[in-house]
Amino acid sequence: MLRRGSYRVCFPARSQRETSRGRAPIWQPLRGPRTTPHPTLRTFSLPVRAPMKERRSSTTNDGFMTRRKALSQMGIVTVGLAVTPVPGWPAPWFSQDAVVPFTDVPDSFDGLRAGGGLRVAQDLRNLSSWTTPVEDFFKVGHYGYPEVDASTYRLALTGLVRRPMTLTLDQIKSRPRVQRTTVFECSGNSSRIFHGMVGNAEWTGTELIPLLEEAGPLEDTREVHFWAADSGTEEIRGNEYEQNFARSMSMQAIRETNPIVVYEMNGDPLTLEHGFPVRLIVPGWYGVSQVKWMNKIELSADRLMTRFMAKDYVTLMGREVDGGTEWIETSVTRQRPKSAIARVTRSGSNFTIHGVAWSDGTPLDRVEVQVGDGAWRSAELERPDDPTSWTWFTLEIPALPSGEHTLVSRATDSAGRTQPEHLDLKRTRWENNELFYRSIEVA
Amino acid sequence: MLRRGSYRVCFPARSQRETSRGRAPIWQPLRGPRTTPHPTLRTFSLPVRAPMKERRSSTTNDGFMTRRKALSQMGIVTVGLAVTPVPGWPAPWFSQDAVVPFTDVPDSFDGLRAGGGLRVAQDLRNLSSWTTPVEDFFKVGHYGYPEVDASTYRLALTGLVRRPMTLTLDQIKSRPRVQRTTVFECSGNSSRIFHGMVGNAEWTGTELIPLLEEAGPLEDTREVHFWAADSGTEEIRGNEYEQNFARSMSMQAIRETNPIVVYEMNGDPLTLEHGFPVRLIVPGWYGVSQVKWMNKIELSADRLMTRFMAKDYVTLMGREVDGGTEWIETSVTRQRPKSAIARVTRSGSNFTIHGVAWSDGTPLDRVEVQVGDGAWRSAELERPDDPTSWTWFTLEIPALPSGEHTLVSRATDSAGRTQPEHLDLKRTRWENNELFYRSIEVA
Repeated sequence: MLRRGSYRVCFPARSQRETSRGRAPIWQPLRGPRTTPHPTLRTFSLPVRAPMKERRSSTTNDGFMTRRKALSQMGIVTVGLAVTPVPGWPAPWFSQDAVVPFTDVPDSFDGLRAGGGLRVAQDLRNLSSWTTPVEDFFKVGHYGYPEVDASTYRLALTGLVRRPMTLTLDQIKSRPRVQRTTVFECSGNSSRIFHGMVGNAEWTGTELIPLLEEAGPLEDTREVHFWAADSGTEEIRGNEYEQNFARSMSMQAIRETNPIVVYEMNGDPLTLEHGFPVRLIVPGWYGVSQVKWMNKIELSADRLMTRFMAKDYVTLMGREVDGGTEWIETSVTRQRPKSAIARVTRSGSNFTIHGVAWSDGTPLDRVEVQVGDGAWRSAELERPDDPTSWTWFTLEIPALPSGEHTLVSRATDSAGRTQPEHLDLKRTRWENNELFYRSIEVA
Repeated sequence: MLRRGSYRVCFPARSQRETSRGRAPIWQPLRGPRTTPHPTLRTFSLPVRAPMKERRSSTTNDGFMTRRKALSQMGIVTVGLAVTPVPGWPAPWFSQDAVVPFTDVPDSFDGLRAGGGLRVAQDLRNLSSWTTPVEDFFKVGHYGYPEVDASTYRLALTGLVRRPMTLTLDQIKSRPRVQRTTVFECSGNSSRIFHGMVGNAEWTGTELIPLLEEAGPLEDTREVHFWAADSGTEEIRGNEYEQNFARSMSMQAIRETNPIVVYEMNGDPLTLEHGFPVRLIVPGWYGVSQVKWMNKIELSADRLMTRFMAKDYVTLMGREVDGGTEWIETSVTRQRPKSAIARVTRSGSNFTIHGVAWSDGTPLDRVEVQVGDGAWRSAELERPDDPTSWTWFTLEIPALPSGEHTLVSRATDSAGRTQPEHLDLKRTRWENNELFYRSIEVA
């Protein structure tokens, strides 16, 4: 258990053993420079307090009521929905309720900022809009943030195609326009950073599949390689090579996810940090697949095995088989089902637990909330039409005894995948969807 | 140019820059221990002479005649085919012709043997049968050669399946039996080892796809992971983990290649070195995919990124784009079109160049042969019915002036892919299908 105080949250280096054990977030003091830190997000200054582990004041399990049910009984459940065209918590409701602060997150915590002060992740406690504002949406640049000139920008469709194409930004914008509101998180998002590296946004662009069809994939095509403008030097087999960021997807994965070639985020042109002028959005997949500053789409017979495809963003996890442990490395692709409690509000003696949940697009079956050692209770879900958007949940609690309470939520998708309590055998930070505990104190 | 003498042929370590430049095979003296040698095949003792580079005695370009055409004119072209049920050079023809020795391979060269004397690659000069004898077929074990007890052996079909299965060897043998004659080479096969790590064999087993269908893949299945009995310790992110050898294929790739779960090679049960009791055969793919000692077939939503899937067996190659060089790492999967001259025979003043060619199963369009600086002449092909088997080629040359002659062949498949003269920008030994030069001397 860490004492209250100032710590720096940092990602372990690639070459270090990376653990994700137990209930407590790994708030660890910075121990000097790391050789290969997480791109861009090297360290964060974050005063933290470890979450509560004791359960001395567990609440009653009875008498819980969802917010919607309670509001429905009051005859006002449609008011909020009338105010906002998309589902979510209407701002007026927020203002009526007092926020109950988390006791394991200091009030002074103001979000996650990179060295230069740039906010690179959102503060979930301030979650108040269905879509994440551009400035709050998490930002990761693997080789920095390249400035691309829109007037000379070209997107190439090349490789195993019958009709190679080169599109200007205007030509991309003149293609059939689609909008999707989807959520994605950095696969390194975890309780260490208050789960701030996640966001839901409205993306506007044109679908990838018709573009590929127009270029005419040749029979040998197995994969599509997405190349970006950002580049850096990598050591490969003892020598240094200039490498552009790239990710690849199989044709099967492309058919399943229906990616978009995107030029607007929340109604405005992409900002520099979010991939101006053009990025890829792969609904339901982790952030690393959402290639920013994308300038080349290459159809290939070969499976791409570059650093960010095959060496980094590889999850190492063990599994118990016949009394032994098998250790398996897999690629970071589709998001695991996950939820996080964002805030708790109080109105009189009633408490409401608010949070967000998401998946890889497999519809969520339920989100359950546990207070102390109490039973898991199903929360009310504010479901979007698009399952690749995030889902908000609320659970009303009529009363809580005084004392400190531990709160936690868990999401389960329709395929039966539930957030695990512990990922004891996961040895990399990627894809951490462990339960996320928060604490409040009732006077 | 190396002098005639005794050299040890070795594979460079993973961490070294690996080159494949120029015409001369990279016969390099051993320079001390390597940190990560090629599995099993650490070094070979091989006295060699560098191949001819000069062209002072190039032959005439005219008057060439293929063996089949010549034989056809003699009215005996069907004789050989009548003698052997599969196409190929009938042994009697061999005996009638005198072998013209290569001047760049010493007579004392007796094939490639591992430290213990085990022959691990064939001597192409002795190629005389359509299928490669089991003892000559190249042998690579990534974690040694595990001895598996047939009586307790089980093949598990597991993971994302509706009906997990566990099959004994007898149960596998009782399934519908198929035979395929296919060629594959080690992706590290190159002129450095006289191209001996290639072989064509008859494989008997049962098809993978019906097995998968019987197990019932769940919708989430993206890949199939093939696990083997051989295991070793790997350092991953600074810690050591016991790892079993494994390879994976996408469902798309499985549909394209139609792999076989094999228990017989050339009519006999698999030997220890070739994967007893059960291995996978993936027609048209490099050797690393032909998983030996296979004991688990696991359907997965995740892309496998273990050492032999994502870190080793990754080709690093550059390409020139807009005046710059892009360096790309891709996975070793399908074989590149390739040919090798195996021997030259003489009957009176007539010479015949014999060789083998193969691809990933894309039918070969042609194999051409060049003598000295002469024109490329199309060789006669002995085509198998199955394009994943190898093709033999012959070219008759009525006469050659006295002196030294350089010989080379090149294969082109029906997709237009031709063996390259140089792969100047390839930085790993994998997938080397450069032209393979040989020399003879005519008295």
